[in-house]
Amino acid sequence: MLDSLTADTIIEARWIIPVEPEKTILSDHAIVINHGVIQAILPISQARSQFISHNHIALNHHAIIPGLINLHTHAAMTLMRGLADDLPLMEWLKYHIWPVETRYVSADFVLDGTLLACAEMLKGGVTCFNDMYFFPEVTAKAVIECGMRAAIGLIVIDFPSAYANDTDDYLFKGLSLRDCYSQHPQLSFCLAPHAPYSVSDKALTKIVTYAEQLDSPVHIHLHETHDEICSSLDTYGVRPIERLRQLGMLGPNLIAVHMVHLTKEEGNLLKEQNCSIAHCPSSNLKLASGIARIAELVALGINVGIGTDSAASNNRLDMFEEMRLAALLAKAQSGQADALSAHQALRLATLNGAIALGIDKITGSLAIGKAADITAVDFSTLALSPCFNPVSHLVYAASREHVSHVWVRGKLLLDDRELVTLNERELINRATQWQRRLNS
Amino acid sequence: MLDSLTADTIIEARWIIPVEPEKTILSDHAIVINHGVIQAILPISQARSQFISHNHIALNHHAIIPGLINLHTHAAMTLMRGLADDLPLMEWLKYHIWPVETRYVSADFVLDGTLLACAEMLKGGVTCFNDMYFFPEVTAKAVIECGMRAAIGLIVIDFPSAYANDTDDYLFKGLSLRDCYSQHPQLSFCLAPHAPYSVSDKALTKIVTYAEQLDSPVHIHLHETHDEICSSLDTYGVRPIERLRQLGMLGPNLIAVHMVHLTKEEGNLLKEQNCSIAHCPSSNLKLASGIARIAELVALGINVGIGTDSAASNNRLDMFEEMRLAALLAKAQSGQADALSAHQALRLATLNGAIALGIDKITGSLAIGKAADITAVDFSTLALSPCFNPVSHLVYAASREHVSHVWVRGKLLLDDRELVTLNERELINRATQWQRRLNS
Repeated sequence: MLDSLTADTIIEARWIIPVEPEKTILSDHAIVINHGVIQAILPISQARSQFISHNHIALNHHAIIPGLINLHTHAAMTLMRGLADDLPLMEWLKYHIWPVETRYVSADFVLDGTLLACAEMLKGGVTCFNDMYFFPEVTAKAVIECGMRAAIGLIVIDFPSAYANDTDDYLFKGLSLRDCYSQHPQLSFCLAPHAPYSVSDKALTKIVTYAEQLDSPVHIHLHETHDEICSSLDTYGVRPIERLRQLGMLGPNLIAVHMVHLTKEEGNLLKEQNCSIAHCPSSNLKLASGIARIAELVALGINVGIGTDSAASNNRLDMFEEMRLAALLAKAQSGQADALSAHQALRLATLNGAIALGIDKITGSLAIGKAADITAVDFSTLALSPCFNPVSHLVYAASREHVSHVWVRGKLLLDDRELVTLNERELINRATQWQRRLNS
Repeated sequence: MLDSLTADTIIEARWIIPVEPEKTILSDHAIVINHGVIQAILPISQARSQFISHNHIALNHHAIIPGLINLHTHAAMTLMRGLADDLPLMEWLKYHIWPVETRYVSADFVLDGTLLACAEMLKGGVTCFNDMYFFPEVTAKAVIECGMRAAIGLIVIDFPSAYANDTDDYLFKGLSLRDCYSQHPQLSFCLAPHAPYSVSDKALTKIVTYAEQLDSPVHIHLHETHDEICSSLDTYGVRPIERLRQLGMLGPNLIAVHMVHLTKEEGNLLKEQNCSIAHCPSSNLKLASGIARIAELVALGINVGIGTDSAASNNRLDMFEEMRLAALLAKAQSGQADALSAHQALRLATLNGAIALGIDKITGSLAIGKAADITAVDFSTLALSPCFNPVSHLVYAASREHVSHVWVRGKLLLDDRELVTLNERELINRATQWQRRLNS
């Protein structure tokens, strides 16, 4: 008989749903973790005979999935959750969000808002998020503190803020931050020009150059509303996506957020150029932007991930909600009940996000050699009974309340629904203080 | 100084949102309950000086709303939750749901399934549901046992089942049940012809007669899919709603479920005839039926309530989810971000359901003289921080996990998230047994 190998952590589960290979559901399997990395995935009986660990966790009624990846958010804006509702995008931005941002956004605001967002996301099974906001160095600090993974957006916008004076200042500050943390194991970076309507050709051209030099993803709002397209036609004579094409921004590094309004030709162009899309169903509905034709775009072979957008336009950072909504909307929008199956929706919310961010070699699925970014969902509950198919339940029946454990890089960050690295009560108190300030 | 009056229960809350009068939010108010009825709603300080109770509950971080009314479900089908997904309506019914029903549906199935559904709904803040299923006498029994309120559908369908042999048998059994329980304080009844495609003119005509005689609501699936309309045109030469008009079924007693596909004229007809609509957004998306034009129908002045449909096509009985989805879809569908505001969505999920069922004199809003059918939502949580407007949070940010207490007729049925009248563990065990049987 062979000696047992030691492992940092062994997680046994009723089901493991690795996302890769496709449509796989492993019953009564275990994940073995060493140095933050998945070392083995094998039947529980074999895990018990081959490995030994002081940290052996039995999740007998749980499904284990890759940590969810929130492909588009503005985490700090969680402090503006529900500040203004039932308004169209530009009115909401111009008369509610931007004035509050001008007056209140600071490093402190970003720290408190991002930690609040991280706590909400961790409790909802999210292990990684793609952010775009002012003071990205503070976002990075919050992410490091709580142990999550994030792609930090190096925001560029044509107007000044408390964070930066002009586009060069935004770019300089962002790139310096990237230099500082380029090797950090929890962080990756995206160049993040806000949107075609808020960034000039000059700045976009610089960003294209940096993106090529650094082989960096570019995270931008694109074709979110009909008005955005009309205003681009007025100002530039072309639709935003054509303008970006002319500027050289289309390509595998592009993460086009929203893509609610696009022609068949534009869909084909995105596919040809190997661009990724961040689909934000709740936000698109809430701001009456429309419904992105995701079933069609996925069928074209485009890499589509899912994002919550900010808690100011959603009003939650709940990837279970977005995953369900993505699957349901795809069916109604395409008229095909078999469009975007539960398995596909789960892939959008995990692996496809990692692909968009260029980090799919290290996260996004449960595979040997990838980081142990893992979410456990407790199925021993009324709302998930009976259970004929755990993947169906994950997408259509479960909600974030059923998330019990979360690991990032093998480190336990949510333990039986309790946050390990963050103080929930303190975060709520700080949010309440900001609420009083913003209300005044 | 006056002597204090005694009360059965006094509930103090951070906010009371009574739904009537419109857009009201009462801060730091209390509800005084006697004999199951709301006796007073007044500021906490006044409640403390005027009333005394052994059962005085302080919910300092909570919003109190009328219990949610689920205007369309098939509760027992909760035992088929997730049995078959990603399929269009007729394929799903013909090859998955109906064969299982033929083989397994019995009084036992209906009892276990309905109790499971009641438990899920109570934990999600639902106090009343409008049901349609076989063995309605068993549904009634389950409702009485758990203390909820329900409108029991007296189902009629053209094909035989374990419950009844033919339409006359269905009708006879249903009407006998109604006679038996007509005075029961938890129950009301609807005549419930399944759908235009599954009930003959002859049976529908009888139902119209009984509905008039008894002044009873009529609960029917209507204009759910495009196919339903085509098949009616083929068979009857008219669209289903015109057929029902000819048969005399349109009127204030009609609860038309789904109404996804309808012309402008049909919308006007429903308004003229004062019909109610049960909007089931998740189910309509999941079966790819489409998106009902609710913003337009509400603007016409039609009484629209919200239903979950069954857990087999949803796959949850979660009125918070449906309320959020109704508000979000109305915005995208109409292209107006101010369509169906949070206040309106809450009204759809409460008072409008009661109006449709003809029980708005006794439930559906928090008003003096109405039954104490009450749901408390705990706002002391990360996901609801900060809070600028509790009604916005109820619709856009809260989920059923935040429901802490539920009363029906003044009786506490959910106490700090724990079911009082039902045994959760036992219900899960029974669901698991049915799962094994259905899988075999």
